Amino acid sequence: MTVGDDMYEEVKPQSVHPLGAAAVPDPELLCIFGTGDLGRSLGLRLLQSGYRVVYGSRRPNSCGPLPEGAQSMSHAAAAQSANIIFICVHREHYGFLETMAPHLEGKVLVDLSNNLKKGMYPEANAAYLQRLVPGAAVVKGLNTLSAWALQNGLLAGKQVYLCGNSAKAKQAVGEMATKLGLTVLDRGSLSAARELEDFPLRLFQEWRLPLLVAIGLIAFFFFYLLIRDVIYAAVEQDKNISYRIMISLANKVFPIVSLIMLSLCYLPGVIAAFLQLYRGTKYRRFPDWLDRWMLCRKQMGLVALGLAFLHAIYTFIIPIRYAVRHKLISTVVNEMKNNKTTPFYFDDTEAWGTDSFYVLGILGFFLYVLLGLTSLPSVGGTLSWREFSFVQSKLGHLTLFICTAHGYIYGWNKFLRPSTYKWYTPPGYMLCLIVPSIVLVLKFLILLPCVDRTLTRIRQGWERTEPKEEMVMTKATNL
Amino acid sequence: MTVGDDMYEEVKPQSVHPLGAAAVPDPELLCIFGTGDLGRSLGLRLLQSGYRVVYGSRRPNSCGPLPEGAQSMSHAAAAQSANIIFICVHREHYGFLETMAPHLEGKVLVDLSNNLKKGMYPEANAAYLQRLVPGAAVVKGLNTLSAWALQNGLLAGKQVYLCGNSAKAKQAVGEMATKLGLTVLDRGSLSAARELEDFPLRLFQEWRLPLLVAIGLIAFFFFYLLIRDVIYAAVEQDKNISYRIMISLANKVFPIVSLIMLSLCYLPGVIAAFLQLYRGTKYRRFPDWLDRWMLCRKQMGLVALGLAFLHAIYTFIIPIRYAVRHKLISTVVNEMKNNKTTPFYFDDTEAWGTDSFYVLGILGFFLYVLLGLTSLPSVGGTLSWREFSFVQSKLGHLTLFICTAHGYIYGWNKFLRPSTYKWYTPPGYMLCLIVPSIVLVLKFLILLPCVDRTLTRIRQGWERTEPKEEMVMTKATNL
Amino acid sequence: MTVGDDMYEEVKPQSVHPLGAAAVPDPELLCIFGTGDLGRSLGLRLLQSGYRVVYGSRRPNSCGPLPEGAQSMSHAAAAQSANIIFICVHREHYGFLETMAPHLEGKVLVDLSNNLKKGMYPEANAAYLQRLVPGAAVVKGLNTLSAWALQNGLLAGKQVYLCGNSAKAKQAVGEMATKLGLTVLDRGSLSAARELEDFPLRLFQEWRLPLLVAIGLIAFFFFYLLIRDVIYAAVEQDKNISYRIMISLANKVFPIVSLIMLSLCYLPGVIAAFLQLYRGTKYRRFPDWLDRWMLCRKQMGLVALGLAFLHAIYTFIIPIRYAVRHKLISTVVNEMKNNKTTPFYFDDTEAWGTDSFYVLGILGFFLYVLLGLTSLPSVGGTLSWREFSFVQSKLGHLTLFICTAHGYIYGWNKFLRPSTYKWYTPPGYMLCLIVPSIVLVLKFLILLPCVDRTLTRIRQGWERTEPKEEMVMTKATNL
Repeated sequence: MTVGDDMYEEVKPQSVHPLGAAAVPDPELLCIFGTGDLGRSLGLRLLQSGYRVVYGSRRPNSCGPLPEGAQSMSHAAAAQSANIIFICVHREHYGFLETMAPHLEGKVLVDLSNNLKKGMYPEANAAYLQRLVPGAAVVKGLNTLSAWALQNGLLAGKQVYLCGNSAKAKQAVGEMATKLGLTVLDRGSLSAARELEDFPLRLFQEWRLPLLVAIGLIAFFFFYLLIRDVIYAAVEQDKNISYRIMISLANKVFPIVSLIMLSLCYLPGVIAAFLQLYRGTKYRRFPDWLDRWMLCRKQMGLVALGLAFLHAIYTFIIPIRYAVRHKLISTVVNEMKNNKTTPFYFDDTEAWGTDSFYVLGILGFFLYVLLGLTSLPSVGGTLSWREFSFVQSKLGHLTLFICTAHGYIYGWNKFLRPSTYKWYTPPGYMLCLIVPSIVLVLKFLILLPCVDRTLTRIRQGWERTEPKEEMVMTKATNL
Repeated sequence: MTVGDDMYEEVKPQSVHPLGAAAVPDPELLCIFGTGDLGRSLGLRLLQSGYRVVYGSRRPNSCGPLPEGAQSMSHAAAAQSANIIFICVHREHYGFLETMAPHLEGKVLVDLSNNLKKGMYPEANAAYLQRLVPGAAVVKGLNTLSAWALQNGLLAGKQVYLCGNSAKAKQAVGEMATKLGLTVLDRGSLSAARELEDFPLRLFQEWRLPLLVAIGLIAFFFFYLLIRDVIYAAVEQDKNISYRIMISLANKVFPIVSLIMLSLCYLPGVIAAFLQLYRGTKYRRFPDWLDRWMLCRKQMGLVALGLAFLHAIYTFIIPIRYAVRHKLISTVVNEMKNNKTTPFYFDDTEAWGTDSFYVLGILGFFLYVLLGLTSLPSVGGTLSWREFSFVQSKLGHLTLFICTAHGYIYGWNKFLRPSTYKWYTPPGYMLCLIVPSIVLVLKFLILLPCVDRTLTRIRQGWERTEPKEEMVMTKATNL
Repeated sequence: MTVGDDMYEEVKPQSVHPLGAAAVPDPELLCIFGTGDLGRSLGLRLLQSGYRVVYGSRRPNSCGPLPEGAQSMSHAAAAQSANIIFICVHREHYGFLETMAPHLEGKVLVDLSNNLKKGMYPEANAAYLQRLVPGAAVVKGLNTLSAWALQNGLLAGKQVYLCGNSAKAKQAVGEMATKLGLTVLDRGSLSAARELEDFPLRLFQEWRLPLLVAIGLIAFFFFYLLIRDVIYAAVEQDKNISYRIMISLANKVFPIVSLIMLSLCYLPGVIAAFLQLYRGTKYRRFPDWLDRWMLCRKQMGLVALGLAFLHAIYTFIIPIRYAVRHKLISTVVNEMKNNKTTPFYFDDTEAWGTDSFYVLGILGFFLYVLLGLTSLPSVGGTLSWREFSFVQSKLGHLTLFICTAHGYIYGWNKFLRPSTYKWYTPPGYMLCLIVPSIVLVLKFLILLPCVDRTLTRIRQGWERTEPKEEMVMTKATNL
């Protein structure tokens, strides 16, 4: 920046050589220890961003192909020539840095290392490095960048974390990272290094709870329906219908769990609203379990969408199944043999009922897919705040309503039939309607004008019980 | 930036303390009025970007948890210590700023406020603020950022708007915003503040026209087909087939409207081409209605895709419907009872015709989905200009052609049958083929070599009628 | 940046007019030759980013609407007033620049031009420009930006390329581009200009190999199955089943090619692993064909997903086909006429077999879609490295395994039947299982603990044959 400004401020329009060497200071020199994949990719990227780069290597003359424009020197010489040194070396080989400590006095050491597993070492790599070279300012960070992303210039806007005990060292590294197009977040002192080193080892952390809930519900309903459908038939009616496990049973379990999980997306919001109404303020933290629940609503919804997708496909292939075609043919033949007079009475109510059932399912699935699409980062990012909340709240509750209605219509004419309650247990679709119904009723209560008005006031900062009046005023004032 | 440069230019490689305090000036100090959600999130983000932050508060000692590293003072003290002041306070509470006007003389006031509804107040919040504090330079902007986005660092590359009467104040705020990773667009003077305050309240503005067109067409075709199918059967044949409304009728309306809307995506492009051919120049603006139409082509296409998706699912569930299964069984039984000698003649033409119909539908839907995928921001962004235009123009017209053929084949053997024209009205699929056919014929004309050559020249800047020769040369020269 | 810093460093908190004119130097002035779409859009964007802009034009007073705030002058005057000049003029009109060469001495000329086709001219536009104006520093770049993207501010994080012989000129242009929010990659000297000019003309380059492979395989299997199914039936059984070409045949070809292409995604990774095991090092380059193959795995997988999607839809519409319904009815009628005593024996094995077949297909398709979703740039970008490799490797191989099992079960009871081998040829699904089976067996071998351990060590830098011991140590050390 400075370079460009100087150049053009000093040069008068008539001057002939604005690009003369005198006005432009040399770009900053950075040092990289380690000539592996990461070291080379990082050097390439730094050179492309206008830095000069020097590699520190044991054998400067035989360390393989380096990016064009970079020099290589001995570790000591390279360290002396620069102020920021990137340590692109496995932790196991940090030993040599201890012997180099005098050369690293006062330098900024950026520790980019990662481990293969969590908890391999008692202390974080960066803390270990700081202990080896106490005179240097160790900054942990950039370790979430892969050599692949660096080579392919996929850095724009990517968020990286830094931590370290020296604010100035962090600032210097942060500015370098900003120049590479990265967005930098400061995570505090070096004690956060372990956390940063665990980042690249995360494996779908925010998906764990939703997946556990899904697996638990699937397991429960699978065995529940297995007993009610297959085992009941085997015991009471002496019929072997175990072939139904593969598709008929799965196609009951998936929609049941999908609907429950969709309602679990919207339950915490409703609970939070009632909690705020009860407390009469929005300034008290929610309990931890509610916070954690609210943070994984998106993942919960996507798992529910996945199950709904499976339900849709399972439904589409019903008519090509052997058992279904067999049953159809058997029906015809039996009807013919029994030679009824009005064998094929067309039941208009049945036609309306089943068609409504399908239509609600289709519309629900359609809205479900829309919700899923807006949760794609690149789609959600283009929505204004009001649009996003419209989609996720209004459209979301509408989806829940339609899917719940889909469930109710399924059992519309079976609720009161005693044969529905085999072994005195309610069928699966009844169980799965409980939570969605509760959520919808509570949501309906919240939408009542009187409740809604109070809630809106609370969310704008108003408080019912006013312990310190001034406090309240301050709060209600602020955005 | 300056910090880093100074540091490393002055320090010689041998020096021991490059991070000494002397060389580094303090980072800039910014002031925030208001300690609500937005104020705290903004402060956190500014601190992370290397600024110092001071909060102005009525009760500096009891304003709740502030981000670590921020100070809090009285409003007056805070205002004096900084040059840029962020006003994170509801408009209703701006009153106190008037009394503080002397302290705000010459400062930059950034108004981040939003309203709950459009047109709540006669003047924009920022204009009101400027009136209260005439000695300050009010800048409206950043109001599209949510506290949530600020906390989660989702700012990279996000576009924000600024407006204000002081160019220097805007520049200072713009540089701050650039440091936060935002992309800044200057929208001119403070008179644009109302427009900026309406941004977060927009609700799918560019979707409104396409959705209105879709709803209008759906309503028209629904009643048209209701009369032709259900009411005609009730009146003329005394049959109650009202159960068909839910699925059979909907599955006619959706594809009809989808095809018409797809062709409406490509119609404005064709009209624009003919307008340019007729005018012999590309340098005259299109009429307003055409401009507006062209701007919502993408949304129109996506609505059409949504309807096509519904059509696909409605089709997949046909065979599991009660009415369809009933009809199948009835057919068999009737055939058996009548005991025809060659009851089940296999019509090869029928097999070819229906299969071609399905195949065209499937391919059309497949291409449709591809078009939809490339309109995702993150997918479209990776395409080169030529790839994008290939997909959206070539592939788009191919999709329209295949879907139109799908429609033609549906009626291949019914065009000349009198029973098709109930009550002298043409069936729906005939009506829906009109616009697509016109678009395809016009597009075909444009692709004729002689027309294409002229159009290409016009689009490169050539003009048929040459009023001022020099003008033309200038234009034809420029990219 | 400088502007902001100066302003706030000099101004004391008590000062009254921090926005006074004295402290703020004028922003940099940039010159644009050409007032076409691109020139105007670029000027608009530069003005929005805080630059001053002057247009060079033949007729400064009649060059049409320019962005507000820009001046226009004669070419010579405009060129003299600025140091960076953007050439937004078609290459055919570069001639006038030669006559202006004295005014352009020492300036930075940014060539943004593109051609309509590859290889239209013997030398690159930028090289031609440099030859015309040898005294200027020509920089090729920014030519991938469209006027449309510039107008709509869609630049954030977009990658642009620069090349040129003067490092300083490139640096100055690079800093300007960075200010616009672009990410700049330096591609070296002006000899790279041709490559940069070909970028906007690329048309799905990385998709070509996968699409060629897909088309080749589809053609082969189409004719192979045409002969085995349709022509065999016509010749040997004298039956015309040509109507099957449209759907039945296509629905065999698509899954076959999809499965082969999915396995071709994972074959190069397995080959690479065995090559590394055989060579005992990761430091030797793979052969070129393997590199090229590995680079198009993603596209190969997406083509395979597209075919699987078609297979799914083809399957869903099976039961509504005329031929299928006809066959069903014929079956019933024939059964009835022959009046068997136990006509409709329910084959439990058949029910289990076909249902398992469907379930494996559905699960495979579901995982396939998941893989496709994570390959969306905006989704993949949010995954940590470990998550991405989990999805693409573990989930990918699982998908291949399930889809292969889907294929095996299809032929579970037909392998040993002689009627399967019409004209002594194996059926299509057997052929398509060869490559996936090989990939899975090889992958299984790699997962054996002893092989896996060696491979992991090799990938961490260990080498079996140790020609120079020191070399190895250096390598094993680096990240």
